[in-house]
Amino acid sequence: MPSIFSRIIQGELPSYKIGETEEAYAFLDISPLHSGHTLVVPKKEVDYLFDLPDQDYQALMAFSKKVAHAVGKAVPCKRVGVAVIGLEVPHAHVHLIPIDNVSDIDFSRPKMQFSAEEMEAVATKIKSYLD
Amino acid sequence: MPSIFSRIIQGELPSYKIGETEEAYAFLDISPLHSGHTLVVPKKEVDYLFDLPDQDYQALMAFSKKVAHAVGKAVPCKRVGVAVIGLEVPHAHVHLIPIDNVSDIDFSRPKMQFSAEEMEAVATKIKSYLD
Repeated sequence: MPSIFSRIIQGELPSYKIGETEEAYAFLDISPLHSGHTLVVPKKEVDYLFDLPDQDYQALMAFSKKVAHAVGKAVPCKRVGVAVIGLEVPHAHVHLIPIDNVSDIDFSRPKMQFSAEEMEAVATKIKSYLD
Repeated sequence: MPSIFSRIIQGELPSYKIGETEEAYAFLDISPLHSGHTLVVPKKEVDYLFDLPDQDYQALMAFSKKVAHAVGKAVPCKRVGVAVIGLEVPHAHVHLIPIDNVSDIDFSRPKMQFSAEEMEAVATKIKSYLD
């Protein structure tokens, strides 16, 4: 059975899409630690980031850099932090999280909730900065 | 004045070195969240990860993948997590952290302390798995 992320990539489940390349897909995390918290996922369904073939891994990281720049322009923050943990969904994913201090990247914190309109608005703003 | 990481790379300050390439240098974090917690740093002194030129960024991420595999083989853990925060030392660095659960990557936790002998032993073991 395909992962929840593969189903999002295939359009079977909705997402606040940011953009995609041949190898990767970016969308808003629906349980964000900060407004603009984005996930970048390889289209190849591999559980562990470092098990990705080099080409897919490099393509994922290259797209993550582009998306991070767009997130940083769209969302007020000191910088965009990165986390890859991967103990929950068995499909590698890069968290890009706008941060002002180290606690903004603490996954044990309660997640934030935004309305559909707020999520749509921040996704649209991030997309507008993505080349 | 060069960053503390540049001084480590240049050998002016000691480190538990794991390995290096032309573009990046890996060594144990001396305030680890877990035994084997490793930092991978670009030799180019750039504060923010995503400001690195593409070539240096890709070289850093490629070396991080190799080091992560070595850490994962050397240290008992479910997988090796990744974090890039960068609010402290103004020189980009990738944290590679052996994790068993999400709290292992919580930077607000008290850091661990190991003796010089323990640090040397884990560095030697990780190095032995690095191609």
